[in-house]
Amino acid sequence: MIEYRNLRIALLGGGSVGAHVASLLLEHGDELASRAGAGLELVGVAVRNIDAPRNPPIPAHLLTTDAESLILGADIVIELMGGLEPARTLLLQAINSGADVITANKALLATHGPELFDAAEQVGAQLYYEAAVGGAIPIIRPLRDSLAGDRVKRILGIVNGTTNFILDLMEREGSSLESALATATELGYAEADPTADIEGYDAAQKVAILASLAFHTNIPLESVYREGITAVTLEQVESARKAGYVVKLLAICERLVDAETGIDGVSARVYPALIPATHPLAAVHGVNNAVFIEAEAAGSLMFYGAGAGGLETSSAVLGDLVSAARRHVIGGPGVAESNHANLQVLPIAHVTTRYQITLHVVDEPGVLAAIASLFSEHHVSVETLTQSTGVDAGGGSSDPSATATLVIGTHEATEAALAATVTALKTNKVVRSVVSVLRVEGL
Amino acid sequence: MIEYRNLRIALLGGGSVGAHVASLLLEHGDELASRAGAGLELVGVAVRNIDAPRNPPIPAHLLTTDAESLILGADIVIELMGGLEPARTLLLQAINSGADVITANKALLATHGPELFDAAEQVGAQLYYEAAVGGAIPIIRPLRDSLAGDRVKRILGIVNGTTNFILDLMEREGSSLESALATATELGYAEADPTADIEGYDAAQKVAILASLAFHTNIPLESVYREGITAVTLEQVESARKAGYVVKLLAICERLVDAETGIDGVSARVYPALIPATHPLAAVHGVNNAVFIEAEAAGSLMFYGAGAGGLETSSAVLGDLVSAARRHVIGGPGVAESNHANLQVLPIAHVTTRYQITLHVVDEPGVLAAIASLFSEHHVSVETLTQSTGVDAGGGSSDPSATATLVIGTHEATEAALAATVTALKTNKVVRSVVSVLRVEGL
Repeated sequence: MIEYRNLRIALLGGGSVGAHVASLLLEHGDELASRAGAGLELVGVAVRNIDAPRNPPIPAHLLTTDAESLILGADIVIELMGGLEPARTLLLQAINSGADVITANKALLATHGPELFDAAEQVGAQLYYEAAVGGAIPIIRPLRDSLAGDRVKRILGIVNGTTNFILDLMEREGSSLESALATATELGYAEADPTADIEGYDAAQKVAILASLAFHTNIPLESVYREGITAVTLEQVESARKAGYVVKLLAICERLVDAETGIDGVSARVYPALIPATHPLAAVHGVNNAVFIEAEAAGSLMFYGAGAGGLETSSAVLGDLVSAARRHVIGGPGVAESNHANLQVLPIAHVTTRYQITLHVVDEPGVLAAIASLFSEHHVSVETLTQSTGVDAGGGSSDPSATATLVIGTHEATEAALAATVTALKTNKVVRSVVSVLRVEGL
Repeated sequence: MIEYRNLRIALLGGGSVGAHVASLLLEHGDELASRAGAGLELVGVAVRNIDAPRNPPIPAHLLTTDAESLILGADIVIELMGGLEPARTLLLQAINSGADVITANKALLATHGPELFDAAEQVGAQLYYEAAVGGAIPIIRPLRDSLAGDRVKRILGIVNGTTNFILDLMEREGSSLESALATATELGYAEADPTADIEGYDAAQKVAILASLAFHTNIPLESVYREGITAVTLEQVESARKAGYVVKLLAICERLVDAETGIDGVSARVYPALIPATHPLAAVHGVNNAVFIEAEAAGSLMFYGAGAGGLETSSAVLGDLVSAARRHVIGGPGVAESNHANLQVLPIAHVTTRYQITLHVVDEPGVLAAIASLFSEHHVSVETLTQSTGVDAGGGSSDPSATATLVIGTHEATEAALAATVTALKTNKVVRSVVSVLRVEGL
C-alpha cells in the first residue's frame, strides 16, 4: 500500500452533478488517488437544505450548510452550486485562501471570468472548468492545451442539449416546436422555465467561454449576439430538409477581418442556422452536444458526446480534480489564463455569412428581375433562386391574386447588408411577405 | 515587449511533419511565446541529408546531420524521425540530459514505451506524444487528463487513414480492394509498400498506446491481436450495406472480465468489422480518423479529425511544445506515466463479440435445423438468420445441386467458441462453403 499525501476536497452544491461527484469520489477513492498521486479526502458537501432527497445519496455526516467554514483549510474546492451568488463570493474566498478551484458554472465564468482568473493568478491558484461547456465532452483542455500551438479560425458548436433535442424531434418526427418542447419538459430535458435554453442564453454563456479560450481574448457575455429557437417553425425545418439542410441552434465564434475597417477581430454569436445535411454536426441527435473546430494547421476537428446529465458531467469534474491534485503534488504556480491576443469583438452587423430567404411574392411577369435587382442594389449576391409555384418565366399568372414562393440562397454578405435587404423587401410592392430569413453555416 | 526566458528547442527529423513544425515555429514564434510564457528558440534541425528538398523549406543554417550535438544543451527535444533506431537512443540521450521530449513516433512508443517512460521518470523529465495517435486529433491529452477521473470501458477507433480511405472507396464507389489501393497510392495516401497500413500494423501500434493510457496498464505490442483488410471483398462490403452495416478497420481495446477465469483483464485488437450504419464511426469518411470512447460516467464520446498529414500533425506537436514550455516555466517534476492498474491482457480467444457468418449450403429440407443445432452445440447463440435463396421452409429444392446462401448473425460469443463453430461448419456435409466471417462491433 502506497502512502499518499492527503488532499482535502470541499464540495459546494449537492444537486445532480454534486451528488454524482461525491458518490464517485467516495466509491473510487483509491483508484483516483493512484492516478492523482495524492489521497482525495472529501471533507464535506455544502448544501442549502440538508434534508433534500439526493440521487445518489450523500452520507449525512458530510453535509453542511456552512460553505464558508468548509472552504477553510480545503486544498481543492469544487463549486457545483450554479448561479452568480453566493458562488462568486465563495470561489473568490476559496482562491484567496490558496485553494485550487473547479467549477461547472458557465453563467459565473461568462459573467465574472476575468475577475476569477485574475484572483487566481494573483495567488498562483488554478481554476479548472472542463464541465462548464459540453458536459462530459473534453473541450476546454483540448482548446487550452492541445491546440495551444495552432490558430483556431472558427468554432461551430451544438452546446445546448435541450434545443438540439427539440429541433431534432421537429426534424425527425415532424413535431411542432410547442409539442417538441412539451416532450422535452416531460423527459426532464427542459426545465419548468425553459427560457435560458430556448432563448439561447445558455449557449451564449458557453460560446463566450469557448471564444475567450480559443482566441486568447476576453469576450464579455454582452458582446455575444443571441437569437433563440422560438421563431423556428416546422415549415422551415421541412423545407430545409428538402433543400439538403438541417436546422441547428449554433454557437459560433470566429476570427474575422472586418470588411469595413480592416480590424482583425472576433465574432461570437448564437442563432438557429441551416447546416448542410452532410456536415458532421448534422448527425448530432437528441440531447447530445458537439463542438466543431476549424484550425489553421489541424484542419477540422470535432468533439462529440453527452452535453449534460449529472453522471456524465461528473466525469469532467473528476478529471479536473485529478489534474488539480497532480498539480498540488508537483507544486509551483499554475498556468495563467491567456488573453494576450486581446482582439476586438466585432458587432453582429459586421459579420458575414450566407442566408436563405423565403418570400411570398405576387405571381406576375418581371418579379424575379425586380427581386434580383433589389438584392444587387444592396450588395447581396444571389447564389440560388428557387421558385416553387408561379410561372414567372412563362409570363406570369393571369390571376392577379396568385402568390409564388421564392427561396433565395445568397453568397456571403454582411449582416448589415442583409438587414437592409430584408427591410427593402418588406416594403417592396411585389413582396407579399418575408416568410423566413435563416443563416447558413458550415459551408 | 515582454522579456521571456528563452527555451532551446532541438528538432530531430526534417520530413513533412518536421518541416511544418520548423516553419510554424519560426513564423509564429512570438505568438507561441506569449502562450507558453517562454521564448521558443529553434536551435537546429537534425536530418539525414542536408540537401534533400523540403516543403516548406527549412533555413539552411538550421540544418545539421549531427543529432547528438544538437541535443546537448536543448531544453526540449522534438523527435519526428520515425523508426526505432536511432530514435530510441537519441530520445534516451535527450531525457538523460534533462530535456523534456516530444515524439510522434508510434512504433517507438508501442515497442519501447515503458523504457522511455521509466527513463523520464528517473530524471523528472516529461514525454509528450499527442501526435503519435490520431494525427491532429487531441486524443492523448483527453484520455490522460480529462478522463483521469472516469473509467474507460471501451475504445473503438478508426486510427489508420489509408485503410479507411480504401474501405470508404469500396463502400461509396464500388471499387475493388485492389483498385481502391491503387487510387490511395496515386493520391499519396498509401506508401509504395503499403504493408504497415493494410495489414493493420500501424493501427496495432496505435491501439497499444491508447490501451496503455486508457487502462493504466502496459500493453505490449505483441499482445495486440491483428488482422488487416486484405481479405475484405467488395461483395462483403456490399452485403454489409444491404444489412445496414459498414465495414471499417477498427482498433479496439476494452476492459473485459474473462468468462473462463473471471480475471478482470484488457483486450486490444485490430480487425475489419461491421458497424451499424447509424454508428457515429460509420460517418467517418476518406482519410479521416476518429476515436469513439465509452466511459462509465461520461458515456459515449467521439473525437474526430485529420489522422495524418504534415501540417495537421504539426498542430499536435506544437500543442505539446507549448505544454512542455509552460512546464519548464513552472518547474517541478512532471506527471509520471500511470500503469498502476496493471491489468492482464487477455488473448483473442477469450474476447467476446458478435459475428456475421455467410454460408453457401445445399438447398434441401432440414438444412436450417442442422445449421441451427451446430451453432447451439458450440454454445453460439443465433440472433438472426437470413436465407437469400432456396426454399427450406417449403420443403427444399428438387435440384440436388442447388445452393442457398445463409447469413447468420450471432449474439455475443467468444472467439474460441466461434472458431470451433466455423471449423465444424467447414466439415459439415450440408455446408458447401464458409463464404465469410466478420465481427460486428459498435452495437
